[in-house]
Amino acid sequence: MPAFLYKADPARAERWRVLFAEHAPDIEWREWPNIGDPADVHYLGAWLAPDDLQQVLPNLKVLFALSAGVDQLDLSRIPKSLPVARLLDPGISRGMCEYATFAVLSLHRDMLRYRQQQVERRWKAHPLKPAHTRRVGVMGLGLQAQQILSSLKPFGFELSGWARSEHHVEGVTCYAGEAQLHAFLGQCDILLCVLPLTGQTEGILNGALFEQLPQGAALINMGRGGHLVENDLLAALDSGHLSAAVLDVLQQEPASTDHPFWTHPDILLTPHVAAMTQPESAFAGLLDNIRRFERGDVMQGQVDRGQGY
Amino acid sequence: MPAFLYKADPARAERWRVLFAEHAPDIEWREWPNIGDPADVHYLGAWLAPDDLQQVLPNLKVLFALSAGVDQLDLSRIPKSLPVARLLDPGISRGMCEYATFAVLSLHRDMLRYRQQQVERRWKAHPLKPAHTRRVGVMGLGLQAQQILSSLKPFGFELSGWARSEHHVEGVTCYAGEAQLHAFLGQCDILLCVLPLTGQTEGILNGALFEQLPQGAALINMGRGGHLVENDLLAALDSGHLSAAVLDVLQQEPASTDHPFWTHPDILLTPHVAAMTQPESAFAGLLDNIRRFERGDVMQGQVDRGQGY
Repeated sequence: MPAFLYKADPARAERWRVLFAEHAPDIEWREWPNIGDPADVHYLGAWLAPDDLQQVLPNLKVLFALSAGVDQLDLSRIPKSLPVARLLDPGISRGMCEYATFAVLSLHRDMLRYRQQQVERRWKAHPLKPAHTRRVGVMGLGLQAQQILSSLKPFGFELSGWARSEHHVEGVTCYAGEAQLHAFLGQCDILLCVLPLTGQTEGILNGALFEQLPQGAALINMGRGGHLVENDLLAALDSGHLSAAVLDVLQQEPASTDHPFWTHPDILLTPHVAAMTQPESAFAGLLDNIRRFERGDVMQGQVDRGQGY
Repeated sequence: MPAFLYKADPARAERWRVLFAEHAPDIEWREWPNIGDPADVHYLGAWLAPDDLQQVLPNLKVLFALSAGVDQLDLSRIPKSLPVARLLDPGISRGMCEYATFAVLSLHRDMLRYRQQQVERRWKAHPLKPAHTRRVGVMGLGLQAQQILSSLKPFGFELSGWARSEHHVEGVTCYAGEAQLHAFLGQCDILLCVLPLTGQTEGILNGALFEQLPQGAALINMGRGGHLVENDLLAALDSGHLSAAVLDVLQQEPASTDHPFWTHPDILLTPHVAAMTQPESAFAGLLDNIRRFERGDVMQGQVDRGQGY
């Protein structure tokens, strides 16, 4: 019997095991470090892959990343011939949409300013800008980004998106590639990053990019901490060019207690909680991918090794 | 020529005047206290009515409240024969939907707790509850409440509503009257109040009501400050029976600097900004009502003097 080896958060292992037992009795469940006979292990579900993957699991057929991104994996150490699939968890997607809507509405409705006024015990209303005059731009136009854009649509924001390659999304002005990045940024009152983290996108949220945003623009980072040059954000906020930021990720997590973002009145910081993998909502997609692989069909969310995501 | 007398926020008067001049040249614009010949004044647009209304404006035909509610008016001093119409401003409705969605997502996603953790420089994630297991109940089932429920629907919350009279709203479990209030409250993880303020609803958010909510429930008040017995909320939060509250209105506005809500970690307080009347979005509805009145048609949002709203 082929085995699925689980190597991720031990706290959630039991929930995964029960789902496999009930819905995939033809696949044996094993939990790291209890590999058993390595020859049986066809599937690895992991946050981080073991070193010497080929030596440890010589019969491995698919590596399932138990996360929406794969930037935590060192893909250069994983054999090119081994398919790697990301987790497409509708629960993650819903969590991202909730967080994105919360963050955009917080910035649209001046909630960081009202948070500070509550601290200062000051009762003062500020003019309200109609949503149709508020331009929200999303960096990334993949499935997740498109679902976020759908969540924002009912509020009537003016929506745009940017990605490396060309996309067409109804009701969203789409920009593509380096050539159109400047035009995209120039019309973002609120910029929301959900890019994958790759060599090309690391540090993309930097001072040079901020300068291309309109005066008073605000930033949301729901991608990875590695996208943001943190000192550049501080400089842009302190100069007044940017007005506020909502951040769910940092370069170093957990943040040290002396990180300047904790106390910045224009930064709303949350501890990487925009979305969390839930076995109950993630399992169906994972099993579907195993069945697709068994049948020889294309898996969903398979990583393009050239692009790195 | 009949005249429209404006008696509300002087800061917004000019924007109203321009709209009347452009779209209703057959109605003369006047601004309080420059009444001119009182005999011409057929329409009064007011936040507060003048004392001795009948003496001051003997030919008045309609009183237009320039607000969504009319609780600030002493209806007992206004002749029963004078029609009173509330302002149906789609801009107000959109503002209320934005604020309600922000408030519900803030509570659903533990954002008051994360706000406090940021103050304490603590990086700690808490389990995430799927939206379909989160029960959101709205007190009020009028047009505004129904639009708020529509805004919340895409997130997948379990939705219910309560009103004095019976309603049917697709996808929303509706409860009616005193008899069903207990059953409604017993299933509200998040209770959102958008009731009108009347003699019957004053102080409705009190300790006896909070006791009927599930342990750990949270409150949003976007109605009027008069709905909430503030000390009862403090007691319910401090006992741990309620977990958090988002409040946009208070008994006394502006709040004094020693009001205990300013510093309460479980209260998010905003200075009555959920929605603001914008002449540009409100004008069309007001003019439509004037034209309806001229034709002898029923006006929209006309106050039922028996019910008080």
